Amino acid sequence: MSYRVLSAELSAHTGASIRLCGWVHRRRVLAKVTFLIVRDRAGLAQVVVPPGVAVPGEESVVEVTGRVVANPVAPGGFEVAYEGIEVLSEAEPPPVELFRPAVEAGLPALLDHAAVSLRHPARRAVFAASAAAVKAFRATLDGLGFTEVHTPKIVGSATESGANVFALDYFGRPAYLAQSPQFYKQTMVGVFERVYEVGPVFRAEPHDTSRHLATYTSLDAELGFVRDHRDVMAVLSRVVRAMAEAAGLSEVRLPGEIPVVHFTEALKIAGAAPDEPDLAPEHERTIGAWALAEHGSDFVYVEGYPMAKRPFYTHPQPSDPRWSNSFDLLFRGMELVTGGQRLHRYADYLAALGPQAEGLDGYLAAFRHGMPPHGGFAIGLERFLARLTGAANVRETTLFPRDLHRLAP
Amino acid sequence: MSYRVLSAELSAHTGASIRLCGWVHRRRVLAKVTFLIVRDRAGLAQVVVPPGVAVPGEESVVEVTGRVVANPVAPGGFEVAYEGIEVLSEAEPPPVELFRPAVEAGLPALLDHAAVSLRHPARRAVFAASAAAVKAFRATLDGLGFTEVHTPKIVGSATESGANVFALDYFGRPAYLAQSPQFYKQTMVGVFERVYEVGPVFRAEPHDTSRHLATYTSLDAELGFVRDHRDVMAVLSRVVRAMAEAAGLSEVRLPGEIPVVHFTEALKIAGAAPDEPDLAPEHERTIGAWALAEHGSDFVYVEGYPMAKRPFYTHPQPSDPRWSNSFDLLFRGMELVTGGQRLHRYADYLAALGPQAEGLDGYLAAFRHGMPPHGGFAIGLERFLARLTGAANVRETTLFPRDLHRLAP
Repeated sequence: MSYRVLSAELSAHTGASIRLCGWVHRRRVLAKVTFLIVRDRAGLAQVVVPPGVAVPGEESVVEVTGRVVANPVAPGGFEVAYEGIEVLSEAEPPPVELFRPAVEAGLPALLDHAAVSLRHPARRAVFAASAAAVKAFRATLDGLGFTEVHTPKIVGSATESGANVFALDYFGRPAYLAQSPQFYKQTMVGVFERVYEVGPVFRAEPHDTSRHLATYTSLDAELGFVRDHRDVMAVLSRVVRAMAEAAGLSEVRLPGEIPVVHFTEALKIAGAAPDEPDLAPEHERTIGAWALAEHGSDFVYVEGYPMAKRPFYTHPQPSDPRWSNSFDLLFRGMELVTGGQRLHRYADYLAALGPQAEGLDGYLAAFRHGMPPHGGFAIGLERFLARLTGAANVRETTLFPRDLHRLAP
Repeated sequence: MSYRVLSAELSAHTGASIRLCGWVHRRRVLAKVTFLIVRDRAGLAQVVVPPGVAVPGEESVVEVTGRVVANPVAPGGFEVAYEGIEVLSEAEPPPVELFRPAVEAGLPALLDHAAVSLRHPARRAVFAASAAAVKAFRATLDGLGFTEVHTPKIVGSATESGANVFALDYFGRPAYLAQSPQFYKQTMVGVFERVYEVGPVFRAEPHDTSRHLATYTSLDAELGFVRDHRDVMAVLSRVVRAMAEAAGLSEVRLPGEIPVVHFTEALKIAGAAPDEPDLAPEHERTIGAWALAEHGSDFVYVEGYPMAKRPFYTHPQPSDPRWSNSFDLLFRGMELVTGGQRLHRYADYLAALGPQAEGLDGYLAAFRHGMPPHGGFAIGLERFLARLTGAANVRETTLFPRDLHRLAP
């Protein structure tokens, strides 16, 4: 029996009789010839079938036997001259057209028929880029001495923010889905110094927008023995560069050094009043435009956000505790990643939490028993990809999105 | 300011004044000298401190400045001659002793105080091995053309088994935590042919045993265009070998070829009646002993389990449909991994499911629109590590376990 060759590897097998396995991407029956475009995991290949041979319809799964022939006008410069076909499964016509170069169906149809629409080469490319980006995230951090961890997604108390948590019945007790691995990744800095986790997080977001999901993939990193948040930003910059390169996002303008502005400067650049408590979306857009004009960068860090606007574990700016050692990384004027230095002394947690320290014993144990200065960041994978690829909706970069209305497929 | 050197790298810096950062693993105050053992992410290092210098207690976080000196009796052959110390955070004495070579606390104490007990070098080593094993899982599959996916953990119906699912309130609607990515990984074979996922799965297990958890990390793989389950086993064998090697489990007996016995043969080896519907634990132990005696292998595949005992998507053995193209991989006579070939024709799913096909439209769409012969397997990370390291309880190989009683830390 002939051996299987992938569509992208035909050129190395010119003249050989091979087996091409995949889906019928397109069938074109002409008077004198039938063209079959077969799609496999590597791409597309053209099979030239003599007239009169019955070939199955689009999305049927086939094994085609044939000889590899050079043909400058075939896709990839090579095609397969038909010798035989076996139909592995016959398909009903797909609910969305897959053979056209561009995806023409609207988002609801794409999502309703995800099992099939994800097969479109353009859709598939998004998630191949996603996998490459995650691999680059891990490889970068592995190279810096980080250790991967897997922390609980079911937790006993709705601690971090209190709002927007999913509640579940845990053997008759209330429990919650984790909104982030924040507490656990900090705890694990006490064990490994440098840790990362790739996993789902859950937000009971009542917002029906193009950027909110009820669950997404969070790429979390946390590292100990930092001087301040700038050490965290240095790691994040390396991660973002590696992810963008791996995902093939060559049109992204990412200079060797990403510009950094303090929150107080950012307000000035944005033309906002100096007592503004946060950056509004239009402020962020102005800062993004400034970074591009002044630094040729699609990215800009804003550091020093007011303490009042950051979570309780945020480390203040030592020189002025109104501000924090936290940052946002903006991409083209929109928030892409949030991070910062965290408190590390037990007494600081007790002071920051007050009576809310009650019930956080498991988390606070790490600090009671010695934690180094540390910080970290979290990248929402789907949103990161949506922003960097210019997708209008985060659902376009999520395999099977979950939101206020959507729980299937 | 002197530069940071990790404990494991001292030898490369002999004579230099360096900075050692970490936790006070052990403080021994003698009359003429104080020995400070500092623990960092790379290991342990000894610091020799002159008498009279105040040093903080165990688990405090310090930056020690000192000169690297060769000393054959020091751990690793090198030590640091004290020049200065900065205490980054002062710690309360740890609730479990970390400095003794062996972990002496019982499992409940270890788990209750996980934030601290995980810092013990022996505990930490378990999870470093776990991270290395997961990395090897991914690297092996990446090398075989697999693509990583992230599929939903919240699903609309309790489909796969119906029992032991966690229910949650999803914006006022009932929803469930996914028991496995089975349906989604099969669907994604239609997109990428070969996929894997590393992620949490959720089982509302009412069993209070040493091997049941309410949530664990599942390493799932699924591949298309297989001849039968043997192609799946070939991939699994490569994955298991790579994981065992990466985790440093050199005492595991894993021959070049893992022996395979059919279920009917397995019954004979176990001395069981030929009409037994399944293998009992004592049967599995006998088969494990047989594999070791006859093949020098801690591992043995049993293939061909009765269809009646396997999930609906299992592919029958073509030569005799009483049996299935599924398998278990046993390790020392206990089930380690389950896998098999799945049905791939839409009509076969309709026949296997009958009226239960209702409500599975999203899943069945993949088959209706063309799927290749495929199969896969799932490795429970924590159980895999427990088995291969000889841990008595799967909770020993889980960072923060969740079970019938435990929801914290």
